[in-house]
Amino acid sequence: MRGEEIIILRLKGFANADFSQFSVHDIDLLDPSSALNVLQKIRAGSVVLAGSVHKPGVGAVLAARQAFSRRDMLRDVLRGGDDNVLRGVIRLIEDQGFPVIGLGEAAPSLMVQPGLLTRRSPDPTSQADISLGFDVVRAMGAVDIGQAVIVAEHRVLAVEAVEGTDAMIRRVASLRKSGPVGFLRRRGRAAVAERTGGVLVKAAKPGQDMRADLPVIGPNTVQRAAEAGLFGIAVEAGAVLVVEMERTIAEADKRNLFILGVGR
Amino acid sequence: MRGEEIIILRLKGFANADFSQFSVHDIDLLDPSSALNVLQKIRAGSVVLAGSVHKPGVGAVLAARQAFSRRDMLRDVLRGGDDNVLRGVIRLIEDQGFPVIGLGEAAPSLMVQPGLLTRRSPDPTSQADISLGFDVVRAMGAVDIGQAVIVAEHRVLAVEAVEGTDAMIRRVASLRKSGPVGFLRRRGRAAVAERTGGVLVKAAKPGQDMRADLPVIGPNTVQRAAEAGLFGIAVEAGAVLVVEMERTIAEADKRNLFILGVGR
Repeated sequence: MRGEEIIILRLKGFANADFSQFSVHDIDLLDPSSALNVLQKIRAGSVVLAGSVHKPGVGAVLAARQAFSRRDMLRDVLRGGDDNVLRGVIRLIEDQGFPVIGLGEAAPSLMVQPGLLTRRSPDPTSQADISLGFDVVRAMGAVDIGQAVIVAEHRVLAVEAVEGTDAMIRRVASLRKSGPVGFLRRRGRAAVAERTGGVLVKAAKPGQDMRADLPVIGPNTVQRAAEAGLFGIAVEAGAVLVVEMERTIAEADKRNLFILGVGR
Repeated sequence: MRGEEIIILRLKGFANADFSQFSVHDIDLLDPSSALNVLQKIRAGSVVLAGSVHKPGVGAVLAARQAFSRRDMLRDVLRGGDDNVLRGVIRLIEDQGFPVIGLGEAAPSLMVQPGLLTRRSPDPTSQADISLGFDVVRAMGAVDIGQAVIVAEHRVLAVEAVEGTDAMIRRVASLRKSGPVGFLRRRGRAAVAERTGGVLVKAAKPGQDMRADLPVIGPNTVQRAAEAGLFGIAVEAGAVLVVEMERTIAEADKRNLFILGVGR
């Protein structure tokens, strides 16, 4: 992070990473005034939003009774697509004098670069699936829906909405087990249903505010993708964050998946 | 059907309705020549494709060994979106001299008309969700994906791809049980997570060939929607087929859901 001091403001109910090497303050998404008090106390030069902040779980909400003193704000945060939620959060922070900058700007090395990250590379069928996948995520992004799809043999198997990328990949694994999305291959003289193939495509929404809710992949994404029989993962270069980059690539090499960064 | 004689050509591996009141021939999607032989024998005046013909299950495929004499055709049928599959089937039938007409043309009374079918009507929030839902299915349809979405409080909860409408609705029911998509309501002085709300929106794809794979709803759709806590179903008028219309409406009235036909 350009050598500056890093202080983590951990969102109650969301933060699940190990931040023990940093100074940490716990803040509450549903109590914006206490979060702003922390920012003022530490005299933050700028703020980076990292990780995914989807709708707060019921637990987080019920634990934040005091937030009801700002019922209008809460209702605004709870309504609308994820983009709307985050735009509201950014506006709130910047209105108080703390510029919000993107993680890509603060730590560009964490973003996927164009090109192949793995030993395996996509075959022509996967290349065509990747191309269709980017068409689909762009169409979805225009209506503020999730950022990932799974395409196999020119067919869109799954589209992510609020369930999250992992749940979407598990759905494909399950559909493949139960039958409807197997593909037929000739193996010698026999016809066999092939349970593998396809790619996960993940990208930023068109016009996405890169300061918030970046699309993310990591070692778990690779494991889920392998379990669903996918051949690889294609992500929008410069727009998708890889958490634990080395472990993610090692996991993909171990399971013979490709990870490809695709320039816009 | 305009008083003409009706003969059902039942697709092996797909047909699951009771056609005992009709003359029935069983045909095989993967053996087009036998199907065409039947059409010639009965001197069909025109052909109506009804019901949904998604990718054939593995069972159907393996049962059709003889189809491998036409491997190119089989491969074409097995690849690509559902639209491509059906366009191929229609072309094949029409090339043999049998015009394929739409069910909406043969039996227009089965299609949803514009207006409310139920006692309950959508409130303003549901109306806004319906409007967003149609925007989303249109964007999805442009890239040849499924025809249904679920929207609640301006948020797209689920997008249908190959899993089918019923599975998509069950996913929302499950997400609501596990937490992430509940909405907060004030009830007296307490904050409670509301597990209801939202609409299922189903439409034809833009430019969809209305002779094939019409979007369908029926009594089961209403039951699933009620179990997911949805307030109602909005369908594109003139483009969505209601199977068992009376039972479907009775089921919706019993469960206090609305069904609304929306003109383009």
